[in-house]
Amino acid sequence: MLTVFGSTALDTIRTPKKTLKNVLGGAATFAAISASNFVDTGLIAVVGKDFPKPHHKILSKYLDLQGLTIKEGKTFRYDGKYDNTLSTRSTLKTELNVLGDFKATVPEAYKKSQFIYLANNDPEQNTALIKEFDKVKFSMCDTIDFWISTKRDAVIKMIKAVDAVVINDEEAKLLTKEFNLIKCAKKMMQWGAKYVIIKKGEHGSLMFYDDVIFPTAGFSLEDVVDPTGAGDSFAGAMIGYLASKKSTKLSDIKKAVVYGNVLGSFAVERYGLDGLLKIKNGDIAKRVKIYEKMIRF
Amino acid sequence: MLTVFGSTALDTIRTPKKTLKNVLGGAATFAAISASNFVDTGLIAVVGKDFPKPHHKILSKYLDLQGLTIKEGKTFRYDGKYDNTLSTRSTLKTELNVLGDFKATVPEAYKKSQFIYLANNDPEQNTALIKEFDKVKFSMCDTIDFWISTKRDAVIKMIKAVDAVVINDEEAKLLTKEFNLIKCAKKMMQWGAKYVIIKKGEHGSLMFYDDVIFPTAGFSLEDVVDPTGAGDSFAGAMIGYLASKKSTKLSDIKKAVVYGNVLGSFAVERYGLDGLLKIKNGDIAKRVKIYEKMIRF
Repeated sequence: MLTVFGSTALDTIRTPKKTLKNVLGGAATFAAISASNFVDTGLIAVVGKDFPKPHHKILSKYLDLQGLTIKEGKTFRYDGKYDNTLSTRSTLKTELNVLGDFKATVPEAYKKSQFIYLANNDPEQNTALIKEFDKVKFSMCDTIDFWISTKRDAVIKMIKAVDAVVINDEEAKLLTKEFNLIKCAKKMMQWGAKYVIIKKGEHGSLMFYDDVIFPTAGFSLEDVVDPTGAGDSFAGAMIGYLASKKSTKLSDIKKAVVYGNVLGSFAVERYGLDGLLKIKNGDIAKRVKIYEKMIRF
Repeated sequence: MLTVFGSTALDTIRTPKKTLKNVLGGAATFAAISASNFVDTGLIAVVGKDFPKPHHKILSKYLDLQGLTIKEGKTFRYDGKYDNTLSTRSTLKTELNVLGDFKATVPEAYKKSQFIYLANNDPEQNTALIKEFDKVKFSMCDTIDFWISTKRDAVIKMIKAVDAVVINDEEAKLLTKEFNLIKCAKKMMQWGAKYVIIKKGEHGSLMFYDDVIFPTAGFSLEDVVDPTGAGDSFAGAMIGYLASKKSTKLSDIKKAVVYGNVLGSFAVERYGLDGLLKIKNGDIAKRVKIYEKMIRF
């Protein structure tokens, strides 16, 4: 089983063509639903009493929700606006609400999880939570600029506490104060990460382990409508694939990265979670085949 | 034989660590020397009487110079400065000098060239020159923001006149007024290009033909010192490889793109032309092997 910890949110997403209000979002939501394509996935998160029933129904369709706390108060809300190119997002509002003072606990049933994903979240909360698991075989975390700017030391400590970091290119540069992505990865490995995966959006990703570098091209798409959650879907697919194989072999980690690229590509094709929710049996395998054919020479 | 037409320059390149003054540069210089690793390459270009003998000696070591005109006046000069990340270059000075009113002619010996590369240059000059060749099997052009901004219609006309366009991502967007690179490529194909190759620097490239998309990851490098000429080296390697195979088969064009990525990676490892000049026998094949192993999963 895989456990995913992090934020479940009510998102307002403003794209050039469409604005979505209070849709189901959050890093852990995207990652866990993406992972659930590969393996049984439990979600540790918190929402408020205002969390809409239909959203809860979606979560329960894909995930084990023993770890979901419903608390007095309002759900975490995020409001962001994309520019015309869909490549830059500016944050209009962040209301932590029930997430602000959340003390996560790990349900008994999750304690034996061997694969743990700490989605973007307070690094101190993440580092504390990982210690509650008894049999961790592979743990992975993400982070964002907000934590790098406000709690950089805690982010570095979190990186020390996990096996793998998955992070986007701009944040890797911000965190490590390096410009070259190989230099960024080396620094994170010096800090204690065994694996570093740098996500580059449409340009794919770079995976680092020891002296191995594994670059992948992105899955080319003509119609991108909403990049929200693509990176989380990437990470969820990676760790979901590994958990399903119960493997941390390098060859499987490379395959996991390819699944990451592919699930990220599904995520951006529709608004909000819809890109992931419309995935049908066989769609992922089919797209992996298309990808393999595409890049062959 | 391959013919390359375009600029030979005296470059001043300012990088965060080093400034080079009046070094041998120019789009055609990089492209032709890169191509010369694969096939006999003739250069059509113009320099002034001030062109240093040692520079001339370098050109003559790698290239057929029947097409090189030495004219009364000063050689084309370019002066540019990179930012700290080496990802943005601002132009400090451009002196066209002898390039300004140059009327290129094709030497008799080059007229039967089947492979022609029109390096970044005045699109009207490029379009006029291509007509002077009798047996063109495959022609390719590049362009830059300067021509797109000042002679967009002529750039589109040039694209109509060649088989393939190789262009970087930002310039593809500027030219086509699209944000998505697949949409950019489709527009250039509508204008008449059979093949479109979009260069994305460290992120590799995208090749388009009919409904085929061929994405490649870049060759990952830790120590990049000077990106000058990387795109020209990419294009030169592409057409040089195709000319050496006398082929325009899609499978060879894909391989040519891989050679493009690899030659681009050599170019950025040293200052100015030195990255290309230090290539020894076997280095290219070795790096292609490393690349193939790197991206395998």
